[in-house]
Amino acid sequence: MADLTHVDSTGAARMVDVSGKDVSQRSALATGRLVTTPEVVAALRANSLAKGDALATARIAGIMAAKRTPDLVPLCHPIAISGVQVELTVTDDGVDIAARVTTADRTGVEMEALTAVSVAALTLVDMVKAVDPAAVIADVKVEEKLGGKTGTWHR
Amino acid sequence: MADLTHVDSTGAARMVDVSGKDVSQRSALATGRLVTTPEVVAALRANSLAKGDALATARIAGIMAAKRTPDLVPLCHPIAISGVQVELTVTDDGVDIAARVTTADRTGVEMEALTAVSVAALTLVDMVKAVDPAAVIADVKVEEKLGGKTGTWHR
Amino acid sequence: MADLTHVDSTGAARMVDVSGKDVSQRSALATGRLVTTPEVVAALRANSLAKGDALATARIAGIMAAKRTPDLVPLCHPIAISGVQVELTVTDDGVDIAARVTTADRTGVEMEALTAVSVAALTLVDMVKAVDPAAVIADVKVEEKLGGKTGTWHR
Amino acid sequence: MADLTHVDSTGAARMVDVSGKDVSQRSALATGRLVTTPEVVAALRANSLAKGDALATARIAGIMAAKRTPDLVPLCHPIAISGVQVELTVTDDGVDIAARVTTADRTGVEMEALTAVSVAALTLVDMVKAVDPAAVIADVKVEEKLGGKTGTWHR
Amino acid sequence: MADLTHVDSTGAARMVDVSGKDVSQRSALATGRLVTTPEVVAALRANSLAKGDALATARIAGIMAAKRTPDLVPLCHPIAISGVQVELTVTDDGVDIAARVTTADRTGVEMEALTAVSVAALTLVDMVKAVDPAAVIADVKVEEKLGGKTGTWHR
Amino acid sequence: MADLTHVDSTGAARMVDVSGKDVSQRSALATGRLVTTPEVVAALRANSLAKGDALATARIAGIMAAKRTPDLVPLCHPIAISGVQVELTVTDDGVDIAARVTTADRTGVEMEALTAVSVAALTLVDMVKAVDPAAVIADVKVEEKLGGKTGTWHR
Repeated sequence: MADLTHVDSTGAARMVDVSGKDVSQRSALATGRLVTTPEVVAALRANSLAKGDALATARIAGIMAAKRTPDLVPLCHPIAISGVQVELTVTDDGVDIAARVTTADRTGVEMEALTAVSVAALTLVDMVKAVDPAAVIADVKVEEKLGGKTGTWHR
Repeated sequence: MADLTHVDSTGAARMVDVSGKDVSQRSALATGRLVTTPEVVAALRANSLAKGDALATARIAGIMAAKRTPDLVPLCHPIAISGVQVELTVTDDGVDIAARVTTADRTGVEMEALTAVSVAALTLVDMVKAVDPAAVIADVKVEEKLGGKTGTWHR
Repeated sequence: MADLTHVDSTGAARMVDVSGKDVSQRSALATGRLVTTPEVVAALRANSLAKGDALATARIAGIMAAKRTPDLVPLCHPIAISGVQVELTVTDDGVDIAARVTTADRTGVEMEALTAVSVAALTLVDMVKAVDPAAVIADVKVEEKLGGKTGTWHR
Repeated sequence: MADLTHVDSTGAARMVDVSGKDVSQRSALATGRLVTTPEVVAALRANSLAKGDALATARIAGIMAAKRTPDLVPLCHPIAISGVQVELTVTDDGVDIAARVTTADRTGVEMEALTAVSVAALTLVDMVKAVDPAAVIADVKVEEKLGGKTGTWHR
Repeated sequence: MADLTHVDSTGAARMVDVSGKDVSQRSALATGRLVTTPEVVAALRANSLAKGDALATARIAGIMAAKRTPDLVPLCHPIAISGVQVELTVTDDGVDIAARVTTADRTGVEMEALTAVSVAALTLVDMVKAVDPAAVIADVKVEEKLGGKTGTWHR
Repeated sequence: MADLTHVDSTGAARMVDVSGKDVSQRSALATGRLVTTPEVVAALRANSLAKGDALATARIAGIMAAKRTPDLVPLCHPIAISGVQVELTVTDDGVDIAARVTTADRTGVEMEALTAVSVAALTLVDMVKAVDPAAVIADVKVEEKLGGKTGTWHR
């Protein structure tokens, strides 16, 4: 019969067992940026893009994507997300994106926050690419992490 | 009865009708980078991360994500992807990521290529975050686009 | 850095944080109706539709859809559904649909019950539309809700 | 070895083979209504609901759901949707919902249009249920169908 | 810039490009078996299992799973399935399972037929495991393949 | 109003209510085999298959599939998987597959372990089918189950 106790020594991918960790309140904040042209910034401010309301669409896409994280990132644990907020701020050279995810579960939610930011950014690219095919998604990263055994972490 | 002909004038999001566009061979190349520490770079080169083989996992996550693009990006058309390649190159300060997606369909596959890069990058972050919680996903962008009515586009 | 504390003042969509709510036993009952022709009613009773067993197919589709609710309804929390029953009753002018969903979690399951009813109804339309393209899904609504802080609610 | 030629005679569910049908331009329009209270209608008009922008959220949920139709309705064929529009009109007693879906494929898109309407309606219920737990989804139905072998159908 | 032309030489997983292949009529037949106890066979024949109608549930699960193949099998191409039939035959020592899948597309549908059989079998195990926790899924394999450049293949 | 208390007497499929069961540590081990040719075994050992690294791809596909179990098996409860390991061992006539899944939840994880094995096996078939179209998935079964009210079960 299979003995799985030494699998980790081989470098094979595995979803680490977290069943022994405590359920606790945790949250994570991630950020990123869409870098685009002044023409797109003006269109975002005027809500005049051909595909429609880019900010509302990206915000909802980001929230929905946070819930899809374990479907996308192979070794992420399915987790009971208890809250998601995605904030989009139009700046002079693009859009600042921030996502905060909260949970009461056994693992942190950094990946969920990063996924929300990334998919919100991808959605913005989709909305603007007819005008700016060169738009860039920049600096997607965790800003802070609260709760869990390791406690608070700030960039 | 509902008249939907003027919806676009309101700024409401909509999936633009492409049924009149021709089926043709198209491809897109997107790139991005994971920026991390020398410690992680060494672990990636030695395949010694606790969660297992980061590069193989990220490559497969990227390929699978390309197929999930219309589930993630609200206004993307479902598309018959005919090929996906994800290339990961470990560098001195992280990992260079490139994805090429091909299709024979009515719309381009830039979003599929960008989604493959983004999810491969998210997966890399997940694999390395126990060692480097400050890893950054940088410069996710389209490099080139071939085929379709607008033809070739290079950055 | 992003400050997300005032997002709600802007009218932007967000998934409300429920991590402070108690885990408790909850259930919801929702109902709806398919309104169709006597010809279809006879075919349903005889299980003689070309696509096969409409009632079994709709029942299973409803159960599976309850589990997909957070994938469909953007601001719904992912929830640990602990039971689903979908009851279909053929009447003289169509099919009565009822779904009860139970959970032991932090939010109610009204949306899960409504989604089960709606997708069971959509499936019935799909099974009968070759015979009755004018079938109508009517009166999808919550009948009762048990448990949670607000306690019992009846229509 | 299995002989599947007589399966249909047993009443068992099956996805009917459409590979012999022609690819052609097709579209479908479906409608439905959310019936709710004057208090909710006022909140929708003022965009003052606690969960945020209900109309934008429902519109995007409807568009995304159209793409998920074959995942939800067991015997629906996966189809290359080429366009989706969801129109929401606030009335004195709720919200009128209309969805038009277009394709260039082998089957019609009535189920995709009905699914878009149903999920937009479910999303509206989710956004308003804290204020009106008795909201009703009414009269979800196909209004017209264009293209394909059977041609135009109007209610 | 990334050069992806030599990726295949490294052993890295990739989705092979099929955009140059012709669209043609193709089909595949796969089979498999559930091996279980006489007690379960009797319960299947009497439709008296606690979880309900095992055969109808497994049949629908198999059909739906055929559509999910590219979500499950990483390097499978998304494909326009045009028909699926799943046949379940109760035998003296279990259930014989057969699935035929048809398409008009650029690749074969063997994986879709095998996935339909596997998920129908998994569903049967789920329905019977309270009575027979030792049930076995046996001999899942392709029986025949029609169409495409390589033409007919029989076991 | 609908009375759902007697649904079970009709043989209709339902997801059994487990909200009264205790949350406890549980795990399950399932196994299966890919049976193929010496030529494929040699190619697996040399990692020289045209589609790339079959073992890494199958391992990740199995882990991801464990998380998709409630999407595939209609009456399975959504469950908080806390760990998954998939072990693949190349033998002289194919590949031995084993999957262990752990949870801290209200139901067992046998179906998750069986689904991981089945999808890892399907992925192996996909990787090798150009060389061996007759590969067989054999003997997928639960080996042991730990925890929960019924306690330990061994084959």
